[in-house]
Amino acid sequence: MSPAKDISPDRRPLVALAMGDPAGISPELAARLVCSATVAAAARLVVIGDRRILEGGARAAGTALDIETVDGCAIGPAGKPVLIDLNNLHPRDVSFGEATLGGGRFAVENFSLALRLADAGRVDAVCYTPFNKKAMRYAHPGYDDESRFITELLALHGRVKEFNVLDTVWNARVTSHIPLKDVAASLSKEAIIAEIGLTVDCLKRSGVDAPRLLVAGLNPHAGDGGSFGTEEIDIIGPAVEAAVAQGFDVAGPYPADTVFPTALKGGFHAVLTMYHDQGQIAMKLMGFERGVTMLGGLPFPVCTPAHGTAYDIAGRGVANPRASEEAVLLAARIAARQQAAGVQEQR
Amino acid sequence: MSPAKDISPDRRPLVALAMGDPAGISPELAARLVCSATVAAAARLVVIGDRRILEGGARAAGTALDIETVDGCAIGPAGKPVLIDLNNLHPRDVSFGEATLGGGRFAVENFSLALRLADAGRVDAVCYTPFNKKAMRYAHPGYDDESRFITELLALHGRVKEFNVLDTVWNARVTSHIPLKDVAASLSKEAIIAEIGLTVDCLKRSGVDAPRLLVAGLNPHAGDGGSFGTEEIDIIGPAVEAAVAQGFDVAGPYPADTVFPTALKGGFHAVLTMYHDQGQIAMKLMGFERGVTMLGGLPFPVCTPAHGTAYDIAGRGVANPRASEEAVLLAARIAARQQAAGVQEQR
Repeated sequence: MSPAKDISPDRRPLVALAMGDPAGISPELAARLVCSATVAAAARLVVIGDRRILEGGARAAGTALDIETVDGCAIGPAGKPVLIDLNNLHPRDVSFGEATLGGGRFAVENFSLALRLADAGRVDAVCYTPFNKKAMRYAHPGYDDESRFITELLALHGRVKEFNVLDTVWNARVTSHIPLKDVAASLSKEAIIAEIGLTVDCLKRSGVDAPRLLVAGLNPHAGDGGSFGTEEIDIIGPAVEAAVAQGFDVAGPYPADTVFPTALKGGFHAVLTMYHDQGQIAMKLMGFERGVTMLGGLPFPVCTPAHGTAYDIAGRGVANPRASEEAVLLAARIAARQQAAGVQEQR
Repeated sequence: MSPAKDISPDRRPLVALAMGDPAGISPELAARLVCSATVAAAARLVVIGDRRILEGGARAAGTALDIETVDGCAIGPAGKPVLIDLNNLHPRDVSFGEATLGGGRFAVENFSLALRLADAGRVDAVCYTPFNKKAMRYAHPGYDDESRFITELLALHGRVKEFNVLDTVWNARVTSHIPLKDVAASLSKEAIIAEIGLTVDCLKRSGVDAPRLLVAGLNPHAGDGGSFGTEEIDIIGPAVEAAVAQGFDVAGPYPADTVFPTALKGGFHAVLTMYHDQGQIAMKLMGFERGVTMLGGLPFPVCTPAHGTAYDIAGRGVANPRASEEAVLLAARIAARQQAAGVQEQR
């Protein structure tokens, strides 16, 4: 095999971009990223997928596609975006708006290769355009979510943590894809302290030197002194106190309906919420078109736009590439920071 | 007693404005409402409180106060705002930012008189500037919330329902001030259908002829087909179906993190949420400075700004009166509609 990394003086991180579900807006988003000057200024893109699908995306987006095909083992030294063409999906097998086995296989293959390249240190970060969960499950029965897929594929230990990132504010959550009725019983002082620690760690890796966090309560008005629930008194408050005692810059619990405006106004870097929608309702309203999902706790950053496949507008060239750009920029920033700091892989 | 209502041809509804907690921004908001041309165009204001406190509010707000004192039994016929001066709080007993027994008594007295005047048909609607719950409890031990206070004071039967109103979108909720852990068990098909009916009824009284509603799910991604909770399948979905069968224009359940943007985009009139923060997170982000809380299910409308007493900026004249104005406008609109429709009181 040839040397892994570009040996040119170009210090921009190599970001693998796995093409996502082909039946939605993923192809046109990938094509737009290839042409994006904003992306080019921050990262060297290695697109993984099928040239024909990418060309279809470029036609939909109305952009010219200037991308060289390379071997997965010989990325670089070109400064421009390159394509690892897996030749794994014929455009005639794509039907816009339809989740299929073929589409799922395409996305799973692209994502798997991107992760393996990152795992081998041949790229510095992984991004992907949106997946369709149903298609992923057709292709990979038992597919739960990206965190689990990555952990299993790369046989990693430790927790992968999903963050939602909007501009300068991150959202981490103690519980995620579980029934609402199980949320209260899933909270513990230990879990909250651990989340605070992981969030601070990931923020530092992204370049925030002194992360400041707010923690949301669980109940209406954060329980109003115990009137509507006692988790703030019994669990969340003590967890925040313990985290402060450990040296973390963290405050709370704050009522969920004002914690995000408070964080924005106060220049806080992250809000830790107790459950999925507590954060998602706010983040989506604050900037659906810019939101990024980041997987932390891995040896390399993995980022994707927070929005989905948008089957309803597929192929029309109207998809907003802003969140996809933000995803690449965040991944590149974290990767650059890790390079600069000489951070060792955590395995 | 003299005749209850103004006998002039002035058809603007009479809106009683109870002065709220004196230690926050309530006095200056009341003073601003007295001077508001927007309010004057829609309603005849009957302020209830203490002239000295109102004058203090006018000084803070930097507005001139031109308001005649009247007897509570002889409101009108003046077209300008009038004051029922209860002479019930000396300014020296007010300490900005402090919840006190005196402040609570003041607010409770003003609110009680406003409600009694409305109950007797002497005013058409009730508004109030923000209360402090702690102060209300000092003055009226066992004070729970406004809905309960009104029901008890006027010995009303039936349910008082709290709505949050932002511009053209209303938010109603199936559960409110209860611990989050109890929300799921508090949901029932019957309760959801009843809420839909009550919301539609209140919207119609406010002038919306054909109300269209969206209903939120309970779990992340509305349960994702039962993957993260089954209340959507077992309770909420069937309730929506039953409501549709009864002729209501209602759809759902929708994921909580996109239901509000969907409602705004689709021109829906209300979103029914399953719990407090599901709606409050969204409504506060969408327009904290304009939000109104409306109590429906009463013979007369009761409206107040959705924000609180803002002890931190009390007396500085910087409070935004927009939500208070919106509260009076909404109350006046509903009252005018009820007058026009000759709606009989529902008791």
